[in-house]
Amino acid sequence: MKTETMRWHGDRGGYLELIDQTRLPTEFVELKCRNVQSVWDAIKQLKVRGAPAIGIAAAYGVVLGVQEVPSDTTGLGFFAKLREVTGFLATSRPTAVNLFWALDRMTQTAEANKNCSVDQLKDILLTDAKLIHEEDRQMCHAIGSHGATLLLDGMGVLTHCNAGGLATAEYGTALSVFFTAQDLGKKIHVFVDETRPLLQGSRLTAWELKQRNVDATLICDSMAAQVMREGKVQAVITGADRIAANGDSANKIGTYGLACLAKSHQIPFYIAAPTTTFDLSIETGESIPIEERSSTEITHGFQCQTAPDGIDVYNPAFDVTPADLIDSIITEKGIIRPVDSKTIQSVLGLA
Amino acid sequence: MKTETMRWHGDRGGYLELIDQTRLPTEFVELKCRNVQSVWDAIKQLKVRGAPAIGIAAAYGVVLGVQEVPSDTTGLGFFAKLREVTGFLATSRPTAVNLFWALDRMTQTAEANKNCSVDQLKDILLTDAKLIHEEDRQMCHAIGSHGATLLLDGMGVLTHCNAGGLATAEYGTALSVFFTAQDLGKKIHVFVDETRPLLQGSRLTAWELKQRNVDATLICDSMAAQVMREGKVQAVITGADRIAANGDSANKIGTYGLACLAKSHQIPFYIAAPTTTFDLSIETGESIPIEERSSTEITHGFQCQTAPDGIDVYNPAFDVTPADLIDSIITEKGIIRPVDSKTIQSVLGLA
Repeated sequence: MKTETMRWHGDRGGYLELIDQTRLPTEFVELKCRNVQSVWDAIKQLKVRGAPAIGIAAAYGVVLGVQEVPSDTTGLGFFAKLREVTGFLATSRPTAVNLFWALDRMTQTAEANKNCSVDQLKDILLTDAKLIHEEDRQMCHAIGSHGATLLLDGMGVLTHCNAGGLATAEYGTALSVFFTAQDLGKKIHVFVDETRPLLQGSRLTAWELKQRNVDATLICDSMAAQVMREGKVQAVITGADRIAANGDSANKIGTYGLACLAKSHQIPFYIAAPTTTFDLSIETGESIPIEERSSTEITHGFQCQTAPDGIDVYNPAFDVTPADLIDSIITEKGIIRPVDSKTIQSVLGLA
Repeated sequence: MKTETMRWHGDRGGYLELIDQTRLPTEFVELKCRNVQSVWDAIKQLKVRGAPAIGIAAAYGVVLGVQEVPSDTTGLGFFAKLREVTGFLATSRPTAVNLFWALDRMTQTAEANKNCSVDQLKDILLTDAKLIHEEDRQMCHAIGSHGATLLLDGMGVLTHCNAGGLATAEYGTALSVFFTAQDLGKKIHVFVDETRPLLQGSRLTAWELKQRNVDATLICDSMAAQVMREGKVQAVITGADRIAANGDSANKIGTYGLACLAKSHQIPFYIAAPTTTFDLSIETGESIPIEERSSTEITHGFQCQTAPDGIDVYNPAFDVTPADLIDSIITEKGIIRPVDSKTIQSVLGLA
């Protein structure tokens, strides 16, 4: 089963191997990254994508970036190189919060050990990169364990976009709930929205579910309502990109519509996301800016032009699902239900 | 402005010219049909599509099919040829109700004039084909006139699939409402669902609106809820393929979801369709069979593979919107509101 998003091979002088996600679902190609440039390229070209996976790759990128620093370099020289490497990696995907989080953590780890030798520092950084990787793996499994309690044997569930292992170290967030339910012997059937315009559902989620032998059926986004009406799904679970203090959740465009449709059909709508997704500085979803992306994603989506020249296009990348449409938010620290500021603070351990 | 779906050139010995819809939106190619085989090919290969347009093309196909019958042929010989021609055309798209309706009407017209000469019969058939064409044009304009009363200057409206001129003689059904509103000086802005899997919205509707200078914005189907939430649309109007006696309406997959979303956002949902779309032999939408189409429309849209090998796919071509989600049905005979059996019978002139 080929599903591990990335792996570190060897010790301090080793290399990073990751699945080239741009080649899926038709080709399975693993890419060996032996220097910081190749990690930068992989992040830039979306060969590795998804907030947690980018963070992990960047951490290993730091390890590779300082790999060739000679053992007899001074501390000043080592930290100059470290700054160069993190500064370079930061330019690979300037809007990815987890990228900066991982680079900061690696820098702090080095600074906390600034009196160590260069070789020791290299070991310490590799250990911390592996720890970031392992923490993410455990976080995914914890989300899966909590979420699986919400699913019953024989249930149909619907998901959107890719909140899967490929975006994380291993099991993913929404998909971890499915994988864990299956590990626990609950048979489930997953309906996968293809997720226009970039088709992360058909390209990545459908591939992951197939790799792990979960029963899955691919549909177009416009078919979700019909699938609900036919009684084929009893729950909707998606990931989230950013969650406000009151529980309003930004996620891939189409999520809000699904939440409305779930309500119309009296089907619970769940979000599965790590607690790092909460941005408590944002009070409500109204303050979350919605990125608009290139019109060609819609007009030239399948390597050919499918809309007339010069047509106006609206292409919001995200939408915000208000808390009152969300039955529960599944985190690694437990299930938030009802979704309101008080329960969020309580599960996050802040109240 | 190139928007006429098809035109007859010349008299009895003339030819049919039609827009090759498979070349849109990137190329505008008109096809000259000088014999029945070329009309058969055009219908078969979806170069002409949409129930009314197929009926009109088939009527002209009959004219072309008997064109070469010598003037001194016997009545028996002429009718044998007519049967051969209609039988052949019937095989071009065996599920298209309007195709059979047009072939039957042309046959009945010929039979009602069976004592005429061969040349007279050819003239009579051409006249009837032109009449079918003209009746459809007038029907579209009547739908537009009734529907335009529902739109106010400055409104945003949303549509799905192609209920446009290309599917009919000229103005279409849902699109006729927009074109007529604009003709009346009401400025409207149309949001167009691209309409996966076959993208009739981006390929055809967006093209038609641009040709007629109606302000239009293309979106993915999954963005409709967000557009509604942002207050950008005040009405949703789609066509219909088949309407049951109680008003339940079958239309392109995605329509039912839009109707649910319109309700969630307190936006009226309208259907625009000719009265021939009603099938009063069907009591409710539950009896309307839903065609399932090939999985490759989803997995290999537009000549490239976007899903893993062997993935299970669900591809219903239509869904049924229950009458209680439909604010009004706009027909050429007037607006049906509320949508129930009694009002339908009354507007159809049956009660």
